[in-house]
Amino acid sequence: MTATTDTASGTANPLIAAGAEGHRRILTGDRPTGPLHLGHYFGTLRNRVQLQSQGLELMIVIADYQVITDRDRAERIAEHAENLVLDYLAAGVDPERATIFTHSAVPALNQLMLPFLSLISVAELSRNPTVKDEIAHSRQAAVSGLMFTYPVHQAADLLFCKADLVPVGQDQLPHLETTRLIARRFNDRYTPLFPEPQALLSRAPLLLGTDGGKMSKSRGNAITLGADEDETARLLRGAVTDTDRHISYQPETRPGVSNLVLLIALCQDRDPHAVAEEIGSGGAALLKRTATEAVNEFLRPLRTRRAELAADRAVLRDVLHAGNARANAIADRTLAEVRTAMGTF
Amino acid sequence: MTATTDTASGTANPLIAAGAEGHRRILTGDRPTGPLHLGHYFGTLRNRVQLQSQGLELMIVIADYQVITDRDRAERIAEHAENLVLDYLAAGVDPERATIFTHSAVPALNQLMLPFLSLISVAELSRNPTVKDEIAHSRQAAVSGLMFTYPVHQAADLLFCKADLVPVGQDQLPHLETTRLIARRFNDRYTPLFPEPQALLSRAPLLLGTDGGKMSKSRGNAITLGADEDETARLLRGAVTDTDRHISYQPETRPGVSNLVLLIALCQDRDPHAVAEEIGSGGAALLKRTATEAVNEFLRPLRTRRAELAADRAVLRDVLHAGNARANAIADRTLAEVRTAMGTF
Repeated sequence: MTATTDTASGTANPLIAAGAEGHRRILTGDRPTGPLHLGHYFGTLRNRVQLQSQGLELMIVIADYQVITDRDRAERIAEHAENLVLDYLAAGVDPERATIFTHSAVPALNQLMLPFLSLISVAELSRNPTVKDEIAHSRQAAVSGLMFTYPVHQAADLLFCKADLVPVGQDQLPHLETTRLIARRFNDRYTPLFPEPQALLSRAPLLLGTDGGKMSKSRGNAITLGADEDETARLLRGAVTDTDRHISYQPETRPGVSNLVLLIALCQDRDPHAVAEEIGSGGAALLKRTATEAVNEFLRPLRTRRAELAADRAVLRDVLHAGNARANAIADRTLAEVRTAMGTF
Repeated sequence: MTATTDTASGTANPLIAAGAEGHRRILTGDRPTGPLHLGHYFGTLRNRVQLQSQGLELMIVIADYQVITDRDRAERIAEHAENLVLDYLAAGVDPERATIFTHSAVPALNQLMLPFLSLISVAELSRNPTVKDEIAHSRQAAVSGLMFTYPVHQAADLLFCKADLVPVGQDQLPHLETTRLIARRFNDRYTPLFPEPQALLSRAPLLLGTDGGKMSKSRGNAITLGADEDETARLLRGAVTDTDRHISYQPETRPGVSNLVLLIALCQDRDPHAVAEEIGSGGAALLKRTATEAVNEFLRPLRTRRAELAADRAVLRDVLHAGNARANAIADRTLAEVRTAMGTF
């Protein structure tokens, strides 16, 4: 889903660096369904930190209401939310400059759903291909009203803070089009108030899980940022490879081996082909050892910070409280503008 | 639409009087689309005042977001909202005991839409016969997302204040069923939090417009509460009757004549057959003169209060501000309970 992600999605951003003269605001986020893993890190988290260091303002929504779009009940949402903050800070997000907030804590943002729902037809919502796809993969027997109206929540997420940019994958462009349509219609019908957010298309590498499938904590195939070095080693030892002792980087034909090569390349900021060549005919065993060392070395400073931060959960809650207060101030201001534009009391 | 009404709907309430030992809260309301008329008065407003005098707590929602469910743009919403307050107070609603508020001014109420949307399926929303009917009569080319999700807004309206009772017409029962379903599902899935509001079925007399059609300000066939005596006389002079000089009360076969008889009967708190008998063969002219006098006499004290109140619009705004503050306090409390129940941060 746009703006938030359970898996890898993100952006490389030379264009942004070039165009960052003015103040620009980016909205991005995650669902609080579990800890972040390396797929998230290289897919999006790394880029967020980079964008922030380039002077862009980050809004990070912890999309707790989104958790219940496609499952009946969300477990331990608050705990997962705190852990997301932990991962963000460990990865280098500066909470002084970023606004990290939970969706359910910003009523004025959520209220925007109502005027926005009046600007879009049921037919338009039904045609949204991403919603169709989400519906096909839903964990629920019936499609909920929340799932059906999802592109409108997202419009509220993006427009409440008048985000200029949103990092998305190709599959998420239809959602963004709905947001842009709602912004245009509101501006036309009432008062020009909302920018139409631009997509920051992801060029992130796709990391697979150690079993060759989609990386996901629930499948037990993901190296989480908070995993210790032994767990990392264990997971990588069990990674799927193949029987050809000569290591090469051929993602199409040798996905398992190439995924480990890519992981090393990402951790060491090298070209995957060079990594593969170096291992040469060392075989899967050497590949896995090298990957384990690369990952553990790469994550060591992050994990150290993470352990320090984890020692004081109150700090994490303070970050969320401060972020929620900031998001509420922004949302209250926008809602006041919307009320004036619409002429409600 | 349930809870709010553009036309006559309301309730007679001997049952309530009997059962009003405990504190009971009623939610009712109107859309801010124009001034209230005699149809509203005898249909619902009179009953609200009566219910209040019996010790029930009135929540009156001015449903400003509902205005945009079925039309593209709402005009002069804030002015209409103030005029509704004027009509309420003139009719005897005590703003110290009632909470009169505008829908768009209570973000925490509107936020309830999101968790509630997760508790209802698209199929269930599509099947709602009242929504189907509203869609058939919509002023818009396409059905908006706001119209489609209307039963869920209403669930938020009723459940945010944990209303025990809602005055509805027969046609509005399906909406109430959606509210009750959402309350049950929330209580089952999370924590028992919401009462299932009961219908207070309308036994209100149906007043027609002076042209024999549905009474509506926009058709120019309605005597508004704020109309002066001359305008009242003019409208009633132009009322549709028939050629039979002998006046009788036969709503099925003589709708125009019977409607004027009913109007007199309501204003004088008499039986319509007795009213008709008294006029006898005085014909339509005497009937209309009698109706004019009856209406003007009946409305005189209300109109006097209305004129006094209208002299100071600031008072009306103060009533709304106070009502909105009260509604926000209630909504914030309920939303906090919902967040605890759902375990969001």
